[in-house]
Amino acid sequence: MFTGLSAFPLTPMDEQDIDETAFAGLVERLAAAGVDSIGALGSTGSYAYLSRGERARVARIAVEHAGDVPVMIGIGALRTRDVLLLAEDAQKAGASAVLLAPVSYQKLAPEEVYAHYEAVARSLSVPMCVYDNPGTANFQFSDELHGRIAQLPNIGSIKIPGVPSDAAEATARVQRLRALIPAHVTIGVSGDWFGATGMNAGCEAWYSVIGGLFPKTALAIARAAQRGDAAQATRLSARLQPYWDLIACHGGSLRVTAAAASLLSLARSPCLPLPLKAIDGADRAYLARLIEELELA
Amino acid sequence: MFTGLSAFPLTPMDEQDIDETAFAGLVERLAAAGVDSIGALGSTGSYAYLSRGERARVARIAVEHAGDVPVMIGIGALRTRDVLLLAEDAQKAGASAVLLAPVSYQKLAPEEVYAHYEAVARSLSVPMCVYDNPGTANFQFSDELHGRIAQLPNIGSIKIPGVPSDAAEATARVQRLRALIPAHVTIGVSGDWFGATGMNAGCEAWYSVIGGLFPKTALAIARAAQRGDAAQATRLSARLQPYWDLIACHGGSLRVTAAAASLLSLARSPCLPLPLKAIDGADRAYLARLIEELELA
Repeated sequence: MFTGLSAFPLTPMDEQDIDETAFAGLVERLAAAGVDSIGALGSTGSYAYLSRGERARVARIAVEHAGDVPVMIGIGALRTRDVLLLAEDAQKAGASAVLLAPVSYQKLAPEEVYAHYEAVARSLSVPMCVYDNPGTANFQFSDELHGRIAQLPNIGSIKIPGVPSDAAEATARVQRLRALIPAHVTIGVSGDWFGATGMNAGCEAWYSVIGGLFPKTALAIARAAQRGDAAQATRLSARLQPYWDLIACHGGSLRVTAAAASLLSLARSPCLPLPLKAIDGADRAYLARLIEELELA
Repeated sequence: MFTGLSAFPLTPMDEQDIDETAFAGLVERLAAAGVDSIGALGSTGSYAYLSRGERARVARIAVEHAGDVPVMIGIGALRTRDVLLLAEDAQKAGASAVLLAPVSYQKLAPEEVYAHYEAVARSLSVPMCVYDNPGTANFQFSDELHGRIAQLPNIGSIKIPGVPSDAAEATARVQRLRALIPAHVTIGVSGDWFGATGMNAGCEAWYSVIGGLFPKTALAIARAAQRGDAAQATRLSARLQPYWDLIACHGGSLRVTAAAASLLSLARSPCLPLPLKAIDGADRAYLARLIEELELA
């Protein structure tokens, strides 16, 4: 299940509760568009901000509304104890896979991260995607550590935070990691502006935020890369440069995606957990123009 | 209450539960030693790893066993919603103050942090200490932002992550911040190896991890600085250099402090939440020697 376009939807919420109707709508939209998998409760799905009960509820709704599309559920938490419980909940909800980042408060040592993954991987009956996101988890994987973790049972994929923008360097980067991991473990790129370059460089999957809101736009890029038309994938991604620039201005995809979802009436506004705030004012107006001009929706 | 030695105890725990007896013992030890305040559920108290119920329980035990010593309770969490609830719990438990770090998963913007502190500060009936710890919270305060937050109601102190090691530079750093905050807001230094330099440079408080386990050692340094004997404070701190070096080797105080607590039979081993692990093997043996040679206990 760890190939092609994996789409990561928002979990719309307010200070009281999750907006279950909006979330179910986002999931159905992805299934209808034909994405290859759905990554619910990823960073875009604000997993870290929700209680165990809320996360179990979101997992169930995702599976119920995804039709035949396999669902991966984020199970990251600070404590190994809590991750083991979240893994159980996700599997009970019918998840086809789980996604685990080494979330930290105290900076983690590589051996602590390895033991954490080992304990969780051995407990699973579905495959796991290792989530490497130094910006949010505040932990820097070495390729050597990726290699060791990838040997554990039930590891299916590694979600890397990006690739160099130069095509040859990107290919070399993917090959360096590939040489250290078993053949059955796929490599997926994230950071949407790296999607085309990453897939062209040999990543089998694109773990995509834009795919979670604008699946047709992301699918066009992913399918071009998958059929070997690197030039077309690159061209389609380059066309979105003003959108990538807006995201870079706002420290990542989340605050832009939340505003876009409300502009499209796919979520209410606000839909992020405070203290996080979607972009607003002139930035929101500019985003509305971009959605139209780039035909994102 | 935000002056002198504020001692930060561990919250000993295993994968099942908090070790209430050990925690109560640590708190009583601090009260008996005559520390000026106790900072329960700080980073050393692993607040981020505990559930709301566990945190309420720890807060109650801390207040019950602290005698006349005022207790400050850490209330940090990712969501403003949860911090407001934790603040309520801490106040109900009898906390004299609360401690708030801008804990993050998605990197926070300064305006988001300001709004977060504003919402919490306005809800309080006890004073708050602003907890600036870029290593764990993954947020870098500017002095300008400190100045704005310090104007909010109920702000009593700022816990800064350290000072330059040069005495003149340390004084200049404290004065730069002092110029931006109201007179009633104290500045406290943390990072134990900065304690003497920080207090000598004009910090009114030392928020201390070593003070949470070896209160007499820390009090000697704090009292020397408080009576203006900077040379003695510096000398007493310099004597502990091998201990500071061990901490630096292990990415901070926590893993060393946990091992020290178990060496002194003040906590069982392990006493940290997995994936965190106390130092062990040769490092633990070296620590045992240091505790004896430096007469830490």
